[in-house]
Amino acid sequence: MLLLHLSDVDEAGWAEKLRAVLAPYPVVVRTDKFDPADIRYIFVWKPTADAFDGLSNLKAVLSMGAGVDALLRHPKLPDAPIVRFVDDDLSQRMSDYVVAHVAMHQRLYSRFHADQQARRWTQLYPPAATTVTVGIMGMGILGQDAVKRLLPLGYDLRGWSRSPKYIEGVAGFSGPEQFDAFLSGTDILVNLLPLTPDTAGILNRDTFSKLRRNGLTDGPVIINVARGGHQKEADIAAALKDGTLAAASLDVFEVEPLPDDSPLWAIENCYITPHIAAISSQSTGIDYFSNIIIEHEAGKPLTNVVDRSRGY
Amino acid sequence: MLLLHLSDVDEAGWAEKLRAVLAPYPVVVRTDKFDPADIRYIFVWKPTADAFDGLSNLKAVLSMGAGVDALLRHPKLPDAPIVRFVDDDLSQRMSDYVVAHVAMHQRLYSRFHADQQARRWTQLYPPAATTVTVGIMGMGILGQDAVKRLLPLGYDLRGWSRSPKYIEGVAGFSGPEQFDAFLSGTDILVNLLPLTPDTAGILNRDTFSKLRRNGLTDGPVIINVARGGHQKEADIAAALKDGTLAAASLDVFEVEPLPDDSPLWAIENCYITPHIAAISSQSTGIDYFSNIIIEHEAGKPLTNVVDRSRGY
Ligand SMILES: NC(=O)c1ccc[n+]([C@@H]2O[C@H](COP(=O)([O-])OP(=O)(O)OC[C@H]3O[C@@H](n4cnc5c(N)ncnc54)[C@H](OP(=O)(O)O)[C@@H]3O)[C@@H](O)[C@H]2O)c1
Ligand SMILES: NC(=O)c1ccc[n+]([C@@H]2O[C@H](COP(=O)([O-])OP(=O)(O)OC[C@H]3O[C@@H](n4cnc5c(N)ncnc54)[C@H](OP(=O)(O)O)[C@@H]3O)[C@@H](O)[C@H]2O)c1
Repeated sequence: MLLLHLSDVDEAGWAEKLRAVLAPYPVVVRTDKFDPADIRYIFVWKPTADAFDGLSNLKAVLSMGAGVDALLRHPKLPDAPIVRFVDDDLSQRMSDYVVAHVAMHQRLYSRFHADQQARRWTQLYPPAATTVTVGIMGMGILGQDAVKRLLPLGYDLRGWSRSPKYIEGVAGFSGPEQFDAFLSGTDILVNLLPLTPDTAGILNRDTFSKLRRNGLTDGPVIINVARGGHQKEADIAAALKDGTLAAASLDVFEVEPLPDDSPLWAIENCYITPHIAAISSQSTGIDYFSNIIIEHEAGKPLTNVVDRSRGY
Repeated sequence: MLLLHLSDVDEAGWAEKLRAVLAPYPVVVRTDKFDPADIRYIFVWKPTADAFDGLSNLKAVLSMGAGVDALLRHPKLPDAPIVRFVDDDLSQRMSDYVVAHVAMHQRLYSRFHADQQARRWTQLYPPAATTVTVGIMGMGILGQDAVKRLLPLGYDLRGWSRSPKYIEGVAGFSGPEQFDAFLSGTDILVNLLPLTPDTAGILNRDTFSKLRRNGLTDGPVIINVARGGHQKEADIAAALKDGTLAAASLDVFEVEPLPDDSPLWAIENCYITPHIAAISSQSTGIDYFSNIIIEHEAGKPLTNVVDRSRGY
C-alpha cells in the first residue's frame, strides 16, 4: 500500500493519477481509512511531524523534492531508504534558468540596463562566451545537465564536487583542498550543491573575494539555484554594494517567501526570482514514482537512493 | 596594392598589421602617396563619397562589415566584386546575444523584474525551453550559427529564408508565401536578415499581430540584431504598450545613436543595447582579409562575394 502525504500541492490530483497507473496496487491519502502497518511506501512533500507515526513496515520513503535537506532534518524520519525525484523535465527547466542568467551576465545586462535608464549610448563590447569561465559547484544530475547546455555555447567550464569527476570539456576540482583554486579562475559561480552541513553558508564574503576579478568586465557574478541555506544574504548585499560582486541571480533565500524588508529587493544588480527555477512536474513524476514501486515490488533494487551519511 | 579606407576605427592599427602579414605586397592608407591606378584592392568601412575615385584597376572591394546594405547604397560604388567579412568570432558573439535574450524572455524576465520592484513573491513557473518556439528570420551564416547554439538548449526552432533550406532540427519556411505560416507558430522572433528593399520595415505591426499568442505566458517577443532599417519603431512602441508584444530586445535602430527623445528608452519591457551585439574583430579580420588577397593573387577565386542583384 502506498500512502501519499503531500502538503501545499495538488495531493488529490497525484492520488487519482497514481491510482490509475498502479491499480490494483492500493494508493491511499491521509484522510482515507487504512492500517498504518499496511503502508509499504510513503510519498512525501513537506511531511508533518507525525507523518511517519505507526508506519512499521515501510520499504521506502519517496521524496517529491530533488533536494532532501528538509526531509533529512525530520525528527522522526524512519530508517527506510529514501528515494529522491530525478527528472529530465526538472533538469531541463533548471538548466533553462542557469543558461538565461549566465548568458545575461556574460552580456553585461546590468550595465546596459543602467545605460538605458540614463539614455546613454556607450558601445562597450561584452566578452565572447569563449573567454568567460563558468564555475559550477555540484557536478551531480543538475550540474551535469547545465554542463551539457553551456558547453555548446562556448563557455569555459569548471566544476567542483566532493569526489573527483572526469567530465568531458570540464576542468574538474574536488574537495575543500581544491576549492580556492576552483574559485580563482571562475567569473560566474553557479551553485547546484545539495544543502548539507558541509555546504551551508558556502556563498559568503570569503568565497566571493576569491573569484576571478579580471574576467568579466564589471567583476564576478553568483547564481544560486540550490538552497537559501547556502547563502549569507548580508554578505551578498554588502558584496553587491562594494563591487566584490557585479551581480547576483538568486532563486532561493534564507527565509522564503523573501521578507518584505529584505535589502535584496531594492539592489539593482540583484536578480530575484521566487524559487521557480525548476518544478517537480506531476506528469513525469507519476511515471517515475509508479515505476519505482512496480519495479521494487518485482524484486528490483531501488534507484536514486539518498546516502544519509553524506546528507544527499 | 591594397588601399585601406576605414573611418571611425583604428585604421593605423589595421594598416600596421596587414603590412606585417602581406609584405612584400604594398599596403597604403589615404594619406600615403600612391597612384590610384595601382590600387587592386580597397578595404572599406564607411567609405566617403569620393572613396572610389580614380581606382580604375580595382579587382575587389573588401567590406569590414558583415552587412553591406550601406555600401551598396554608395553612389559611386565601382563594378568590382564585393567581398564581405564572415567571421567565426563575430558569429559567436552574435549568437551569445541571441541566446541571452531568447533565454531571458523564455524565463519571463520582464515579469519577475516587475514583481521584484513591487516586492511581490508570485510563484509562476516559466515554460520549459522545449515548449517555446524561436523563429529565426534569415538562415545565413548568423542564423545557422544561432541554430547551432539554440538546438542543444531544447527550443523548438523554425527558420525563414528567401530560398528553401533544409537544416536539421529546424522547420523551414521560405519566401513571402510562407511568411505568415512561419510567424503563426513563433513565440520569439529573431531577426538576422540582411537589409534589402524586400526586408526593410519587416518588423512592423502587421508582422507582430501574426505571431503566436498562446505560447509564451505574456505574449510574443521580438529580437532585432540585424539592422535598424528592418524595424518600425513607432509600431514597436505601440505594440509593447498594448500587449501585442510582451517584450522587445533591440540592438539596432532607425537612427543611431538612438536619439535622446526616442520613446523606446523609457519602455520597461524594451531592452536596448547600443549596436554591440557583434563586433568585427581586428585579429580575425587580419587573417581573413590577408588570406583573401594572397589567394586571389595566386589565382584562386574570391569567396563570400556579395550578389548585387539580391542585395546581400
Ligand atoms: N531551486 C530549485 O528550484 C531546485 C530544484 C531542484 C533541486 N534543487 C537543489 O539542487 C541540488 C542539487 O541537485 P542534484 O540532483 O544535482 O544533486 P546530486 O545529483 O546529488 O549532486 C550533488 C553534487 O554536489 C556535490 N557535493 C555534495 N556535497 C559536496 C561538498 N561538500 N563539496 C563539494 N561538492 C559536494 C556532489 O559531489 P559528488 O559527485 O562527489 O557526490 C555532487 O556532484 C539539490 O540538492 C536541491 O537542493 C533546487
Ligand atoms: N547588430 C550587429 O552587430 C550585426 C553584426 C553583423 C551582422 N549584422 C546583420 O546580420 C545580417 C545577416 O548576416 P549573415 O552573415 O547571416 O547574412 P547571410 O549569410 O547573407 O544570410 C542572409 C539570410 O537572409 C535570407 N534572406 C535574405 N533576403 C531575404 C528575403 N527577402 N526573405 C527571406 N529571407 C531572406 C537569406 O536567404 P537565402 O538563404 O535564401 O539566401 C539568408 O538565409 C547582415 O546582413 C547584417 O545586416 C548585424
